Amino acid sequence: MVSRRKALTLAGVGVAGAAGVAAAASVLSGGGESATASGTAADAITFYGEHQAGIVTPAQDRLHFVAFDVITKDRADLIELLQKWTAAAARMTAGHDAGVIGAVSGIAEAPPDDTGEALGLPPSGLTLTIGFGPSLFRTADGVDRFGLAARRPAALDELPAFRGDALKPEISGGDLCIQACANDPQVAVHAIRNLARIGFGKVTMRYSQLGFGRTSSTSRAQATPRNLMGFKDGTNNLKAEDGDLLTEHLWAAPADGTQWMAGGSYLVTRKIRMVIETWDRTSLGEQEAIIGRNKGEGAPLGHAKEFDQIDFARKGADGGPAIAMDAHVRLAHPEQNGGVRLLRRGYNFVDGSDALGRLDAGLFFIAYQRDPRKQFVPVQRGLAKSDTLNEYIRHESSAVWACPPGVTGPQDFWGRALFA
Amino acid sequence: MVSRRKALTLAGVGVAGAAGVAAAASVLSGGGESATASGTAADAITFYGEHQAGIVTPAQDRLHFVAFDVITKDRADLIELLQKWTAAAARMTAGHDAGVIGAVSGIAEAPPDDTGEALGLPPSGLTLTIGFGPSLFRTADGVDRFGLAARRPAALDELPAFRGDALKPEISGGDLCIQACANDPQVAVHAIRNLARIGFGKVTMRYSQLGFGRTSSTSRAQATPRNLMGFKDGTNNLKAEDGDLLTEHLWAAPADGTQWMAGGSYLVTRKIRMVIETWDRTSLGEQEAIIGRNKGEGAPLGHAKEFDQIDFARKGADGGPAIAMDAHVRLAHPEQNGGVRLLRRGYNFVDGSDALGRLDAGLFFIAYQRDPRKQFVPVQRGLAKSDTLNEYIRHESSAVWACPPGVTGPQDFWGRALFA
Repeated sequence: MVSRRKALTLAGVGVAGAAGVAAAASVLSGGGESATASGTAADAITFYGEHQAGIVTPAQDRLHFVAFDVITKDRADLIELLQKWTAAAARMTAGHDAGVIGAVSGIAEAPPDDTGEALGLPPSGLTLTIGFGPSLFRTADGVDRFGLAARRPAALDELPAFRGDALKPEISGGDLCIQACANDPQVAVHAIRNLARIGFGKVTMRYSQLGFGRTSSTSRAQATPRNLMGFKDGTNNLKAEDGDLLTEHLWAAPADGTQWMAGGSYLVTRKIRMVIETWDRTSLGEQEAIIGRNKGEGAPLGHAKEFDQIDFARKGADGGPAIAMDAHVRLAHPEQNGGVRLLRRGYNFVDGSDALGRLDAGLFFIAYQRDPRKQFVPVQRGLAKSDTLNEYIRHESSAVWACPPGVTGPQDFWGRALFA
Repeated sequence: MVSRRKALTLAGVGVAGAAGVAAAASVLSGGGESATASGTAADAITFYGEHQAGIVTPAQDRLHFVAFDVITKDRADLIELLQKWTAAAARMTAGHDAGVIGAVSGIAEAPPDDTGEALGLPPSGLTLTIGFGPSLFRTADGVDRFGLAARRPAALDELPAFRGDALKPEISGGDLCIQACANDPQVAVHAIRNLARIGFGKVTMRYSQLGFGRTSSTSRAQATPRNLMGFKDGTNNLKAEDGDLLTEHLWAAPADGTQWMAGGSYLVTRKIRMVIETWDRTSLGEQEAIIGRNKGEGAPLGHAKEFDQIDFARKGADGGPAIAMDAHVRLAHPEQNGGVRLLRRGYNFVDGSDALGRLDAGLFFIAYQRDPRKQFVPVQRGLAKSDTLNEYIRHESSAVWACPPGVTGPQDFWGRALFA
């Protein structure tokens, strides 16, 4: 078994050519998520714990998100896949090859059980987070696909249509999703590719999205990054340090009615295309009025600093509200939404250019929450109705996922309680 | 004028909210390329010099490559654009905003002359490298588009068709290209986006490609990276330290017949899709035989170490050649190609997934050379004819570019000698 991490330590650069380097198995054990708060960008994030990693984990710089359709009709097949995936995820997040044989086993007759492009790279903060889509629980043509229909959480409702939605079905929905976040895109891509390889014949890739720059902080230790509109994004995001708020707004609880989801969270993903060429020809004053913050500091208009408590009643120089009634920051703010909060960890994307010669760019929106019916849905309804930003953005994909609680150890697997 | 770099230095984190921070103009001067060999991943690469940066510069980790079509028909317009682009490139590679007003000037009535998403980010090793495509020199309907027909270098021939080519015209060719390389993708994307913004109405984006992992080393100080087949790539690449070889194989010379190209280089770009799902089901032994190297160490088959001088006559255990006659490393090797060399600096890409549920992934091939007719073309002819790797790859795009010499100072601009 070749350990990418161990090989690095032993050989300095590159990887041991022959098999037989003992794995640092201890990396695979150890619980909790506390390790995520410290360490370097190259370190491993603990896989096992009460919650899945990749939610409150300080947002890594790169994303590879993938949605799968399940093509096997066999429940046992699906369970076996989840077990294999979990084992591979535990290995890869610790910086190992996806399987015990590895990419360079010396077994010439068999395909490697790792594809090799991450050989020599450190764990790079990789997290792998799984979600189950509503379609997995669907009864199709009178058949309960995997015997899960009765187990669908009420909170896993399909999202309603929102005003202005321009959704493409082929990049929306899906039975399963995996969010791979890492500080090295090659490590994130390697992980998704190997999970897809392991799933061959049982799942097929529905869509796949790379993101290159995080657009939210999920820890107070992180500076607020900028989205492709050039503005700081996620200033008021829920963060890892918000203990009680996380209990209230992020983690599903036994009292919510679905026992297998306790400790899990619900994920909404939306691909939001930005019409950046139009945005770029908009004056600075108008951009700032639309967002409700200034561009340099990120301070709410009429305020001095990014993290100033926002006073929405404050007047501007013209006697009107400093922050317009239809400014994005006002409409999205908890104060305007009955106090509901989201934990966002979206990423900037550029997918080449379109037929009109414009960059196909924007935000891949990712938000975790306890119940989308009470959080994302009402907030998005308000934004879809009134946000002046809508002139510059277009929601092109949509999905909702139930992300189960964390895997507690090597005997456990992703979704075990769902199938129990 | 807001300097991203200066703001960082002064404020630690974030950016000065108001205008008026003096630019570190000294960063913009200074010649040569020697600064590229040292420094950290966040430092600036010198823009001015005899050759364009981004060729022998140690390959940065991320790519945003874009091809433009020129839509203005006016030669003066095109020259003005090249001047504006050069000025913006000098600024951005030094870590400044694209224009002197900047993203957060405080001039509320005008669109910012920088889009802002790189505010607070360091220069990140950004290089911007321009190339001119054959179509820029074309006579269309009896009209010499920009009066350049007589100035087309002979070496800038359109590439011939190669066996197995599956080219998509919409992502091939182009009048102008810009290669942005940086250690932070947000910085590379920001640069391309701002050049496109400056070119609005004069050029339109033909295609745009992000790459996330360099697949070649261009300096002996860099470890050899891995491509998405999991193999080390570019071991025998031309490198910055290869002084005489660069003169012979990389830089166009006055003796080549096109004076305005002296000190420049010719660039071939090819998007090479990998059928990675099929590759991943191929045995380790077969993968290694196809490449001609082992996967772990990257050593030529029958040899011990990656950089061992390859003995193509060496026999394997079965008495046949250790490196097969149709192995990739043999067919691509200078020894099998009359000694010709290329300087490659390609990148891995993943562009989501295709309609069959497979990752749309591969290598965006980038190779610089003195004359493609004598270098890329004969090598690729040999590969296209015999390489067993062809079963797993597909060339989907192709372009050739004349990259002029470096910009010598603020009075100079990209392509000045071409239009003189």
